[in-house]
Amino acid sequence: MTNSTSTKNIRPADILRKKRFGGELNESEIRAFVRGVVDGSFADYQISALLMAICIHGMSDRETLALTLAMAHSGDMLDLRRIPGVKADKHSSGGVGDTTSLILVPLVACCGVRMAKMSGRGLGFTGGTLDKLEAIPGMRVEMDIASFERQVTDIGCAIIGQTAELAPADKVLYALRDVTETVDCLPLIVSSILSKKIAAGCDVVVLDVKTGSGAIMPTLEDSKKLARTMVRIGNLSGKRFSALITDMDQPLGNYIGNALEVEEAIDVLAGRTGGDLRDVSLQLGARILTGAGAAATVEQGVEMLAAKIDSGEGLRKFAEMIRAQGGDPRVTEDTSLLPKAKSTVELRAGEPGYLSAIRTADVGSAARLLGAGRERKSDVIDPAVGIVMHKRVGDRVRRNELLATLHVGERSDRIGAYNLLQRALKIGPDPVSRPTLIHDVIEAEDA
Amino acid sequence: MTNSTSTKNIRPADILRKKRFGGELNESEIRAFVRGVVDGSFADYQISALLMAICIHGMSDRETLALTLAMAHSGDMLDLRRIPGVKADKHSSGGVGDTTSLILVPLVACCGVRMAKMSGRGLGFTGGTLDKLEAIPGMRVEMDIASFERQVTDIGCAIIGQTAELAPADKVLYALRDVTETVDCLPLIVSSILSKKIAAGCDVVVLDVKTGSGAIMPTLEDSKKLARTMVRIGNLSGKRFSALITDMDQPLGNYIGNALEVEEAIDVLAGRTGGDLRDVSLQLGARILTGAGAAATVEQGVEMLAAKIDSGEGLRKFAEMIRAQGGDPRVTEDTSLLPKAKSTVELRAGEPGYLSAIRTADVGSAARLLGAGRERKSDVIDPAVGIVMHKRVGDRVRRNELLATLHVGERSDRIGAYNLLQRALKIGPDPVSRPTLIHDVIEAEDA
Repeated sequence: MTNSTSTKNIRPADILRKKRFGGELNESEIRAFVRGVVDGSFADYQISALLMAICIHGMSDRETLALTLAMAHSGDMLDLRRIPGVKADKHSSGGVGDTTSLILVPLVACCGVRMAKMSGRGLGFTGGTLDKLEAIPGMRVEMDIASFERQVTDIGCAIIGQTAELAPADKVLYALRDVTETVDCLPLIVSSILSKKIAAGCDVVVLDVKTGSGAIMPTLEDSKKLARTMVRIGNLSGKRFSALITDMDQPLGNYIGNALEVEEAIDVLAGRTGGDLRDVSLQLGARILTGAGAAATVEQGVEMLAAKIDSGEGLRKFAEMIRAQGGDPRVTEDTSLLPKAKSTVELRAGEPGYLSAIRTADVGSAARLLGAGRERKSDVIDPAVGIVMHKRVGDRVRRNELLATLHVGERSDRIGAYNLLQRALKIGPDPVSRPTLIHDVIEAEDA
Repeated sequence: MTNSTSTKNIRPADILRKKRFGGELNESEIRAFVRGVVDGSFADYQISALLMAICIHGMSDRETLALTLAMAHSGDMLDLRRIPGVKADKHSSGGVGDTTSLILVPLVACCGVRMAKMSGRGLGFTGGTLDKLEAIPGMRVEMDIASFERQVTDIGCAIIGQTAELAPADKVLYALRDVTETVDCLPLIVSSILSKKIAAGCDVVVLDVKTGSGAIMPTLEDSKKLARTMVRIGNLSGKRFSALITDMDQPLGNYIGNALEVEEAIDVLAGRTGGDLRDVSLQLGARILTGAGAAATVEQGVEMLAAKIDSGEGLRKFAEMIRAQGGDPRVTEDTSLLPKAKSTVELRAGEPGYLSAIRTADVGSAARLLGAGRERKSDVIDPAVGIVMHKRVGDRVRRNELLATLHVGERSDRIGAYNLLQRALKIGPDPVSRPTLIHDVIEAEDA
């Protein structure tokens, strides 16, 4: 980000007019806009008019990069140079039963690449990574930057909430996008995600872009476009970005809910559970290892990470991180110490056949009706509730066989959740093939 | 405007999304939008995002008509049926030295068609029609609707300020357009102008769309498009609209300023002055007469109006209107009773040749520097100041010959105005042809 070009004489009107007629905004204009967003000299109605013009006309890579960098520089830029070695981060576009962070963070740390992860809390079907961690008794996710740096240096990993003011321009822009139908706009999504990652100061970032019925991008084509653009712009910023496009046509893991997802992550780290959740976690982690130069190939990276499961080092690292953040590390040995729901409700198959499709978004919504996620910021999450799926798409199902178990709390809408979940699972007479798990891999040179 | 379709369940988000992707808004959606603009349920930032989407994607005739009617119905709809006969109105897109209203209103009234004209005040190079009338000692332009109806019934004409709340949605929209670079957008211009004319309740409306260096639409092509759209949408609304496209590559009249323009209007009505101002006034007036069925052809209409100049009836009608609105009617016989500037400054030709071009907008700005117009709403107009032009484009000019006289007041920026005016008048060595005065005529059937 050069500061040589002046933004002083650039008026909102000039920027609005240029973009209205499809022109390409230059770096000075974009910096003037982002500064105006933060200092209030761009009014809400001017910002939203520009956002609409950006949605309709799009943005070039130069514009998207300039917007991303200007947003990153709109607040604190973390300097993690005091932490030795390569620092890595991971971002997921968000899915259902998606607990890869809790698995790959300790595994990657065991392989010598430091994971310095800051997470937002956000809204969603189930809580974010922070909410999952807080299901562990005693666990703290609020930490000042000095303590964060110390923990990452000492034990190789930390996952905390955003204490620094990262990319404050994004807060203003996102609030306006949310009420002006300008959320689903590629350059705005890209700059929103990347600006925070760039401000967070890591060197290597792996992105997990979901596609399918439970994902931000419903079509594979849109997901690929988003992933490619993020990797391209991210690498133009000077960091090392790569992305996987992974399936969300069913929940990634079988456990959905906060304590339940911690339990499944522990099961994977303990080597008791395999499947899609483990596979995606290892693939994402391996890209971090290759990006950081700790593995020569992705295959080698996967082997290294799998070895840390087999040796038990990964689970011990997770326990170490939990202890460092005030939590009870015994949960890694005894998952019954995690919060448990008062009761369970079984969902059984009404007819025999094959589980042919899952409406993942509805499974997520059912979990939220049980109390696992927030609709509004003020909603309080019940860490114990959620859903355990017993079948995956393609599985054969007998009549009356158990499909899912709902873990229900006092404030759960159990009937609403049950009905929604039942309708979300399609059973058909004919065998269906299992969905592709990893649809595409985007490395810097592919983007 | 049917009220059968419900607008209750239409959310701002639905409307924004549809227009963002270039869809055509239906009548219910447009009515919901305009209602939301007036009752505040559409936030400023949502309105401006939609305005930007409209600017970029445009609007179909159906959309523009629905927007125009919804805006017209957003406030008072004047019902002038108590005034007998056909009621006519006139609108100009605004120019320099453009005093046609003061000439054609009394002339048309003499021919039996009632002119019920409401004017806005607005910003501009020189004052609007209301400011010009107020240059006449004692003249009142504020009047309640009952008095307005009585005056139009009794003497056939009135020109007053907007006392009724006509198209209040336009005030909100215009204020936002002004700060989001969405002013110069065809459907928004059309609906802004037409909604007020439709709400004002007249049956016949003639539009004077200016083109050239001092006009809202700089190119002839854009001016034609604006005029055609206004006539087409206006006639779809059930009124009788027609339009002239007239030249603004030089001031229309030779007098620029408020009292000065009243003086020139009186000179035309008295038969002392001819030229472009008289020609355009008669052409516009003749279209009102044919539209109202008072003349069979435009040629006949022009003859009828010219006869009212020759007989002195037009000037007497103007005096009658002035008296009815509290002004001193003796100004029509003795223009020295109008406010006069303290001093004058002469602008003479530095070299011989031909007056080859005039930057009309700069002539207007020079008049504003003298105090004849407002830049901000709070600016106070000096009725006496302005410019008298002594040459028109195509005229031969001798060295040191008088080009213009500046009428200067105590608060005038006389040096700024002089320099600006001097640079606005181009003198070249070669003869040039005189500009076309009336570029096009748009009747209902042409639009």
